[in-house]
Amino acid sequence: MGEENIVYFFTGNKKKYEEVKKIVESGTNGRWKVEQIKYSFLEMQTKSLKDVALKKCFDALLFLKQNDLEGICMVDDSGLFIKALKGFPGVYSSYIMDCIGQEGILKLMENEKNREAYFQCIIAIGNSITDEIKLFEGKCDGKIGHVVTSHSFGFDGIFIPRGYSKTFGEDKEIKDKVSHRRKALNEAIKYLNHLKF
Amino acid sequence: MGEENIVYFFTGNKKKYEEVKKIVESGTNGRWKVEQIKYSFLEMQTKSLKDVALKKCFDALLFLKQNDLEGICMVDDSGLFIKALKGFPGVYSSYIMDCIGQEGILKLMENEKNREAYFQCIIAIGNSITDEIKLFEGKCDGKIGHVVTSHSFGFDGIFIPRGYSKTFGEDKEIKDKVSHRRKALNEAIKYLNHLKF
Repeated sequence: MGEENIVYFFTGNKKKYEEVKKIVESGTNGRWKVEQIKYSFLEMQTKSLKDVALKKCFDALLFLKQNDLEGICMVDDSGLFIKALKGFPGVYSSYIMDCIGQEGILKLMENEKNREAYFQCIIAIGNSITDEIKLFEGKCDGKIGHVVTSHSFGFDGIFIPRGYSKTFGEDKEIKDKVSHRRKALNEAIKYLNHLKF
Repeated sequence: MGEENIVYFFTGNKKKYEEVKKIVESGTNGRWKVEQIKYSFLEMQTKSLKDVALKKCFDALLFLKQNDLEGICMVDDSGLFIKALKGFPGVYSSYIMDCIGQEGILKLMENEKNREAYFQCIIAIGNSITDEIKLFEGKCDGKIGHVVTSHSFGFDGIFIPRGYSKTFGEDKEIKDKVSHRRKALNEAIKYLNHLKF
Protein backbone atom coordinates (compact mmCIF):
# COMPACT_ATOMS: atom_id res chain seq x y z
CA MET A 1 0.00 0.00 0.00
CA GLY A 2 1.39 3.42 -0.94
CA GLU A 3 1.74 6.43 1.33
CA GLU A 4 -0.91 8.80 0.03
CA ASN A 5 -3.99 6.80 -0.77
CA ILE A 6 -6.96 9.02 -1.30
CA VAL A 7 -10.59 8.39 -0.46
CA TYR A 8 -12.74 10.72 -2.51
CA PHE A 9 -15.69 11.47 -0.29
CA PHE A 10 -18.64 12.64 -2.34
CA THR A 11 -20.82 15.02 -0.39
CA GLY A 12 -22.13 18.55 -0.51
CA ASN A 13 -22.17 18.76 3.30
CA LYS A 14 -19.03 20.40 4.70
CA LYS A 15 -19.70 19.42 8.33
CA LYS A 16 -20.21 15.80 7.35
CA TYR A 17 -17.01 15.89 5.33
CA GLU A 18 -15.02 17.28 8.26
CA GLU A 19 -16.44 14.68 10.65
CA VAL A 20 -15.66 11.82 8.28
CA LYS A 21 -12.22 13.12 7.33
CA LYS A 22 -11.18 13.31 10.99
CA ILE A 23 -12.39 9.80 11.85
CA VAL A 24 -10.98 8.08 8.78
CA GLU A 25 -7.59 9.80 8.73
CA SER A 26 -6.97 9.09 12.40
CA GLY A 27 -8.46 5.58 12.16
CA THR A 28 -6.09 4.63 9.35
CA ASN A 29 -3.13 6.44 10.93
CA GLY A 30 -2.94 8.78 7.99
CA ARG A 31 -2.50 6.05 5.41
CA TRP A 32 -5.72 7.21 3.82
CA LYS A 33 -6.39 10.86 3.12
CA VAL A 34 -9.98 11.98 2.68
CA GLU A 35 -10.73 14.60 0.04
CA GLN A 36 -14.10 16.13 -0.59
CA ILE A 37 -15.67 16.11 -4.01
CA LYS A 38 -18.65 18.43 -3.95
CA TYR A 39 -21.17 16.54 -5.96
CA SER A 40 -24.93 16.71 -6.12
CA PHE A 41 -26.59 13.36 -6.41
CA LEU A 42 -29.54 13.90 -8.67
CA GLU A 43 -31.78 11.24 -7.12
CA MET A 44 -31.87 12.44 -3.58
CA GLN A 45 -30.98 16.09 -3.52
CA THR A 46 -33.19 17.35 -6.30
CA LYS A 47 -36.13 19.49 -5.38
CA SER A 48 -37.40 19.29 -8.92
CA LEU A 49 -40.27 17.05 -9.95
CA LYS A 50 -39.00 17.25 -13.53
CA ASP A 51 -35.74 15.51 -12.61
CA VAL A 52 -37.67 12.82 -10.79
CA ALA A 53 -40.16 12.25 -13.61
CA LEU A 54 -37.44 12.18 -16.24
CA LYS A 55 -35.46 9.59 -14.30
CA LYS A 56 -38.56 7.47 -13.67
CA CYS A 57 -39.52 7.60 -17.33
CA PHE A 58 -36.01 6.58 -18.34
CA ASP A 59 -36.32 3.54 -16.02
CA ALA A 60 -39.78 2.78 -17.39
CA LEU A 61 -38.50 2.91 -20.96
CA LEU A 62 -35.73 0.48 -20.03
CA PHE A 63 -38.31 -1.79 -18.41
CA LEU A 64 -40.38 -1.82 -21.62
CA LYS A 65 -37.34 -2.78 -23.67
CA GLN A 66 -36.22 -5.47 -21.27
CA ASN A 67 -39.67 -7.00 -21.36
CA ASP A 68 -40.07 -6.74 -25.14
CA LEU A 69 -42.98 -4.33 -24.80
CA GLU A 70 -43.20 -1.92 -27.70
CA GLY A 71 -45.04 1.32 -27.18
CA ILE A 72 -45.44 4.34 -25.03
CA CYS A 73 -44.79 4.53 -21.33
CA MET A 74 -46.02 7.19 -19.00
CA VAL A 75 -45.16 8.18 -15.47
CA ASP A 76 -46.60 10.83 -13.21
CA ASP A 77 -44.85 12.72 -10.51
CA SER A 78 -46.84 15.03 -8.32
CA GLY A 79 -46.21 16.99 -5.19
CA LEU A 80 -47.70 19.52 -2.82
CA PHE A 81 -45.48 22.55 -2.20
CA ILE A 82 -46.28 24.66 0.86
CA LYS A 83 -44.72 28.12 0.93
CA ALA A 84 -44.46 28.52 4.71
CA LEU A 85 -42.71 25.13 4.93
CA LYS A 86 -40.16 26.00 2.22
CA GLY A 87 -41.73 23.69 -0.31
CA PHE A 88 -42.29 20.75 2.02
CA PRO A 89 -43.54 18.03 1.45
CA GLY A 90 -42.59 18.68 -2.21
CA VAL A 91 -41.03 15.94 -4.25
CA TYR A 92 -41.34 13.48 -1.36
CA SER A 93 -45.08 14.05 -0.86
CA SER A 94 -46.01 10.42 -1.23
CA TYR A 95 -43.45 9.17 1.29
CA ILE A 96 -44.27 11.95 3.74
CA MET A 97 -47.99 11.26 3.36
CA ASP A 98 -47.37 7.66 4.42
CA CYS A 99 -45.43 8.77 7.51
CA ILE A 100 -47.18 11.81 8.95
CA GLY A 101 -50.39 12.10 6.93
CA GLN A 102 -52.53 15.18 6.40
CA GLU A 103 -52.75 15.56 10.18
CA GLY A 104 -48.97 16.00 10.37
CA ILE A 105 -49.06 18.77 7.79
CA LEU A 106 -51.79 20.62 9.69
CA LYS A 107 -49.75 20.27 12.88
CA LEU A 108 -46.76 21.86 11.16
CA MET A 109 -49.06 24.64 9.87
CA GLU A 110 -50.57 25.48 13.27
CA ASN A 111 -50.49 29.24 13.92
CA GLU A 112 -49.18 29.77 10.41
CA LYS A 113 -50.96 32.64 8.68
CA ASN A 114 -49.45 32.16 5.23
CA ARG A 115 -51.37 29.10 3.93
CA GLU A 116 -50.29 29.45 0.26
CA ALA A 117 -49.50 26.21 -1.50
CA TYR A 118 -49.59 24.62 -4.91
CA PHE A 119 -49.86 21.18 -6.39
CA GLN A 120 -47.57 20.41 -9.29
CA CYS A 121 -47.74 17.45 -11.63
CA ILE A 122 -45.26 16.33 -14.23
CA ILE A 123 -46.33 13.72 -16.75
CA ALA A 124 -43.46 12.12 -18.65
CA ILE A 125 -44.10 10.11 -21.77
CA GLY A 126 -41.45 7.84 -23.22
CA ASN A 127 -41.47 6.35 -26.69
CA SER A 128 -39.81 2.93 -26.94
CA ILE A 129 -39.40 3.28 -30.71
CA THR A 130 -37.72 6.68 -30.86
CA ASP A 131 -36.32 6.69 -27.28
CA GLU A 132 -37.66 10.18 -26.81
CA ILE A 133 -39.07 11.49 -23.56
CA LYS A 134 -41.50 14.41 -23.40
CA LEU A 135 -42.53 16.23 -20.22
CA PHE A 136 -45.88 17.91 -19.56
CA GLU A 137 -46.48 20.17 -16.60
CA GLY A 138 -49.56 21.17 -14.66
CA LYS A 139 -49.85 23.45 -11.66
CA CYS A 140 -52.73 24.31 -9.38
CA ASP A 141 -52.46 27.20 -6.91
CA GLY A 142 -54.41 27.20 -3.70
CA LYS A 143 -54.13 27.09 0.06
CA ILE A 144 -53.97 24.70 2.99
CA GLY A 145 -57.18 24.42 5.00
CA HIS A 146 -57.48 24.14 8.76
CA VAL A 147 -59.15 20.74 9.04
CA VAL A 148 -58.86 17.40 7.27
CA THR A 149 -62.03 17.24 5.20
CA SER A 150 -61.47 13.78 3.72
CA HIS A 151 -59.00 10.95 3.34
CA SER A 152 -59.88 10.25 -0.27
CA PHE A 153 -56.44 10.59 -1.89
CA GLY A 154 -53.14 12.02 -0.73
CA PHE A 155 -53.35 15.59 0.50
CA ASP A 156 -56.65 16.29 -1.32
CA GLY A 157 -58.47 16.66 2.00
CA ILE A 158 -56.51 19.77 3.06
CA PHE A 159 -55.93 21.53 -0.28
CA ILE A 160 -58.36 24.24 -1.39
CA PRO A 161 -57.79 25.37 -5.00
CA ARG A 162 -57.73 29.13 -5.65
CA GLY A 163 -61.16 30.57 -6.41
CA TYR A 164 -63.01 27.82 -4.57
CA SER A 165 -64.00 27.16 -0.97
CA LYS A 166 -63.95 23.37 -0.86
CA THR A 167 -60.98 21.02 -0.84
CA PHE A 168 -60.15 18.63 -3.69
CA GLY A 169 -61.28 15.85 -1.36
CA GLU A 170 -64.70 17.43 -0.85
CA ASP A 171 -65.36 18.38 -4.45
CA LYS A 172 -64.15 15.86 -7.01
CA GLU A 173 -65.80 17.71 -9.91
CA ILE A 174 -63.73 20.82 -9.24
CA LYS A 175 -60.63 18.66 -8.89
CA ASP A 176 -61.36 16.98 -12.18
CA LYS A 177 -61.58 20.42 -13.85
CA VAL A 178 -58.71 22.42 -12.36
CA SER A 179 -56.24 19.98 -10.86
CA HIS A 180 -52.51 19.95 -11.57
CA ARG A 181 -52.85 16.42 -12.97
CA ARG A 182 -55.75 17.39 -15.22
CA LYS A 183 -53.74 20.29 -16.66
CA ALA A 184 -50.64 18.16 -17.28
CA LEU A 185 -52.76 15.39 -18.77
CA ASN A 186 -54.53 17.83 -21.08
CA GLU A 187 -51.14 18.69 -22.57
CA ALA A 188 -50.14 15.03 -22.70
CA ILE A 189 -53.38 14.14 -24.44
CA LYS A 190 -52.81 16.80 -27.13
CA TYR A 191 -49.43 15.18 -27.76
CA LEU A 192 -50.85 11.64 -27.86
CA ASN A 193 -53.60 12.73 -30.24
CA HIS A 194 -51.05 14.01 -32.74
CA LEU A 195 -48.57 11.22 -32.32
CA LYS A 196 -47.84 9.18 -35.43
CA PHE A 197 -47.32 5.68 -34.14
CA MET B 1 -52.64 5.34 -35.91
CA GLY B 2 -54.00 1.92 -34.90
CA GLU B 3 -57.09 1.22 -32.80
CA GLU B 4 -55.61 -0.12 -29.57
CA ASN B 5 -52.56 1.93 -28.70
CA ILE B 6 -51.45 1.31 -25.18
CA VAL B 7 -49.93 3.71 -22.70
CA TYR B 8 -48.14 1.74 -20.02
CA PHE B 9 -48.56 3.83 -16.91
CA PHE B 10 -45.91 2.95 -14.36
CA THR B 11 -47.17 3.46 -10.84
CA GLY B 12 -47.75 1.57 -7.63
CA ASN B 13 -50.67 3.84 -6.75
CA LYS B 14 -54.03 2.37 -7.77
CA LYS B 15 -56.04 5.57 -7.19
CA LYS B 16 -53.62 7.57 -9.28
CA TYR B 17 -53.82 4.95 -12.02
CA GLU B 18 -57.62 5.06 -12.05
CA GLU B 19 -57.66 8.85 -12.17
CA VAL B 20 -55.17 8.98 -15.05
CA LYS B 21 -56.79 6.12 -16.98
CA LYS B 22 -60.17 7.86 -16.91
CA ILE B 23 -58.79 11.23 -18.05
CA VAL B 24 -56.56 9.87 -20.82
CA GLU B 25 -58.98 7.35 -22.26
CA SER B 26 -61.81 9.86 -22.43
CA GLY B 27 -59.46 12.65 -23.60
CA THR B 28 -58.25 10.57 -26.54
CA ASN B 29 -61.69 9.17 -27.30
CA GLY B 30 -60.48 5.69 -26.50
CA ARG B 31 -57.72 5.70 -29.08
CA TRP B 32 -55.26 5.24 -26.24
CA LYS B 33 -55.81 2.63 -23.57
CA VAL B 34 -54.01 3.05 -20.27
CA GLU B 35 -52.64 -0.03 -18.57
CA GLN B 36 -51.00 -0.10 -15.19
CA ILE B 37 -47.58 -1.60 -14.69
CA LYS B 38 -46.96 -1.91 -10.98
CA TYR B 39 -43.37 -0.89 -10.69
CA SER B 40 -41.35 0.41 -7.81
CA PHE B 41 -38.91 3.12 -8.76
CA LEU B 42 -35.87 2.52 -6.64
CA GLU B 43 -34.83 6.16 -6.30
CA MET B 44 -37.93 7.62 -4.84
CA GLN B 45 -39.93 4.88 -3.22
CA THR B 46 -37.21 3.10 -1.31
CA LYS B 47 -37.19 3.42 2.45
CA SER B 48 -33.77 1.82 2.56
CA LEU B 49 -30.60 3.81 3.09
CA LYS B 50 -28.66 0.91 1.57
CA ASP B 51 -30.36 1.36 -1.79
CA VAL B 52 -29.65 5.07 -1.67
CA ALA B 53 -26.00 4.65 -0.70
CA LEU B 54 -25.43 1.97 -3.31
CA LYS B 55 -26.88 4.16 -6.04
CA LYS B 56 -24.87 7.19 -4.92
CA CYS B 57 -21.67 5.16 -4.84
CA PHE B 58 -22.36 3.83 -8.31
CA ASP B 59 -22.70 7.44 -9.52
CA ALA B 60 -19.54 8.44 -7.65
CA LEU B 61 -17.61 5.59 -9.24
CA LEU B 62 -18.76 6.73 -12.66
CA PHE B 63 -17.71 10.27 -11.82
CA LEU B 64 -14.20 9.06 -10.92
CA LYS B 65 -13.89 7.23 -14.21
CA GLN B 66 -15.22 10.10 -16.28
CA ASN B 67 -12.71 12.42 -14.66
CA ASP B 68 -9.77 10.01 -14.93
CA LEU B 69 -9.44 9.73 -11.15
CA GLU B 70 -8.13 6.38 -10.04
CA GLY B 71 -8.84 5.27 -6.51
CA ILE B 72 -11.48 4.77 -3.89
CA CYS B 73 -14.67 6.73 -3.57
CA MET B 74 -16.83 6.92 -0.51
CA VAL B 75 -20.33 8.16 0.15
CA ASP B 76 -22.34 8.39 3.33
CA ASP B 77 -26.05 8.12 3.72
CA SER B 78 -27.56 8.77 7.09
CA GLY B 79 -31.03 9.17 8.47
CA LEU B 80 -33.04 9.60 11.62
CA PHE B 81 -35.88 7.09 11.97
CA ILE B 82 -38.61 7.92 14.50
CA LYS B 83 -40.86 5.04 15.51
CA ALA B 84 -44.00 7.05 16.32
CA LEU B 85 -43.72 8.77 12.90
CA LYS B 86 -43.38 5.46 11.01
CA GLY B 87 -39.74 6.04 10.24
CA PHE B 88 -40.03 9.71 9.27
CA PRO B 89 -37.84 11.65 8.40
CA GLY B 90 -35.86 8.53 7.39
CA VAL B 91 -34.05 8.45 4.08
CA TYR B 92 -35.08 12.04 3.35
CA SER B 93 -33.71 13.45 6.62
CA SER B 94 -31.49 16.02 4.98
CA TYR B 95 -34.23 17.43 2.73
CA ILE B 96 -36.75 17.45 5.57
CA MET B 97 -34.24 19.14 7.89
CA ASP B 98 -33.94 21.96 5.35
CA CYS B 99 -37.71 22.41 5.18
CA ILE B 100 -39.08 21.98 8.70
CA GLY B 101 -35.98 21.76 10.90
CA GLN B 102 -35.68 20.23 14.35
CA GLU B 103 -38.55 22.43 15.48
CA GLY B 104 -40.85 20.78 12.93
CA ILE B 105 -39.98 17.32 14.25
CA LEU B 106 -40.71 18.38 17.84
CA LYS B 107 -44.03 19.82 16.70
CA LEU B 108 -44.97 16.49 15.12
CA MET B 109 -43.90 14.73 18.34
CA GLU B 110 -45.99 16.91 20.66
CA ASN B 111 -48.01 14.77 23.09
CA GLU B 112 -46.29 11.67 21.75
CA LYS B 113 -45.21 9.35 24.55
CA ASN B 114 -43.20 6.91 22.46
CA ARG B 115 -40.01 8.88 21.74
CA GLU B 116 -37.96 5.93 20.43
CA ALA B 117 -35.75 6.66 17.44
CA TYR B 118 -32.53 5.60 15.85
CA PHE B 119 -29.90 7.06 13.61
CA GLN B 120 -28.62 4.85 10.82
CA CYS B 121 -25.58 5.41 8.64
CA ILE B 122 -24.48 3.54 5.57
CA ILE B 123 -20.99 4.12 4.25
CA ALA B 124 -20.43 2.84 0.73
CA ILE B 125 -16.95 2.46 -0.67
CA GLY B 126 -16.34 2.01 -4.37
CA ASN B 127 -13.12 0.84 -5.96
CA SER B 128 -12.46 2.30 -9.40
CA ILE B 129 -9.99 -0.48 -10.24
CA THR B 130 -12.13 -3.52 -9.39
CA ASP B 131 -15.52 -1.78 -9.77
CA GLU B 132 -16.60 -3.29 -6.47
CA ILE B 133 -18.81 -1.55 -3.94
CA LYS B 134 -18.83 -2.46 -0.25
CA LEU B 135 -21.40 -1.26 2.28
CA PHE B 136 -20.80 -0.65 5.99
CA GLU B 137 -23.61 -0.04 8.45
CA GLY B 138 -23.84 1.73 11.77
CA LYS B 139 -26.86 2.22 13.99
CA CYS B 140 -27.39 4.21 17.17
CA ASP B 141 -30.54 3.73 19.26
CA GLY B 142 -31.91 6.54 21.33
CA LYS B 143 -34.85 8.88 21.79
CA ILE B 144 -36.17 12.26 20.73
CA GLY B 145 -35.88 14.98 23.37
CA HIS B 146 -38.43 17.67 24.15
CA VAL B 147 -36.42 20.78 23.32
CA VAL B 148 -33.91 21.77 20.66
CA THR B 149 -30.61 21.83 22.57
CA SER B 150 -28.42 23.00 19.68
CA HIS B 151 -28.29 23.66 15.97
CA SER B 152 -24.83 22.18 15.49
CA PHE B 153 -25.55 19.58 12.81
CA GLY B 154 -28.74 18.07 11.43
CA PHE B 155 -30.98 16.53 14.06
CA ASP B 156 -28.16 16.21 16.62
CA GLY B 157 -29.83 18.76 18.90
CA ILE B 158 -32.91 16.61 19.56
CA PHE B 159 -31.42 13.09 19.59
CA ILE B 160 -30.39 11.53 22.90
CA PRO B 161 -28.43 8.26 22.48
CA ARG B 162 -29.49 5.32 24.68
CA GLY B 163 -27.68 5.22 28.03
CA TYR B 164 -27.01 8.97 28.04
CA SER B 165 -28.92 12.06 29.09
CA LYS B 166 -27.51 14.64 26.69
CA THR B 167 -28.13 15.06 22.97
CA PHE B 168 -25.50 14.53 20.29
CA GLY B 169 -25.51 18.30 19.85
CA GLU B 170 -24.73 18.91 23.52
CA ASP B 171 -22.05 16.27 23.93
CA LYS B 172 -19.78 15.85 20.95
CA GLU B 173 -17.47 13.42 22.77
CA ILE B 174 -20.29 10.95 23.29
CA LYS B 175 -21.33 11.41 19.67
CA ASP B 176 -17.81 10.73 18.52
CA LYS B 177 -17.83 7.47 20.51
CA VAL B 178 -21.25 5.93 19.90
CA SER B 179 -22.69 7.55 16.80
CA HIS B 180 -24.10 5.65 13.84
CA ARG B 181 -21.47 7.26 11.62
CA ARG B 182 -18.62 6.34 13.97
CA LYS B 183 -19.79 2.70 13.98
CA ALA B 184 -20.10 2.50 10.20
CA LEU B 185 -16.74 4.23 9.76
CA ASN B 186 -15.06 1.83 12.19
CA GLU B 187 -16.07 -1.02 9.88
CA ALA B 188 -15.05 0.94 6.79
CA ILE B 189 -11.67 1.70 8.34
CA LYS B 190 -11.03 -2.00 9.06
CA TYR B 191 -11.69 -2.63 5.39
CA LEU B 192 -9.43 0.21 4.22
CA ASN B 193 -6.65 -0.95 6.52
CA HIS B 194 -6.64 -4.38 4.90
CA LEU B 195 -7.13 -3.23 1.35
CA LYS B 196 -4.36 -4.08 -1.07
CA PHE B 197 -4.20 -1.15 -3.42
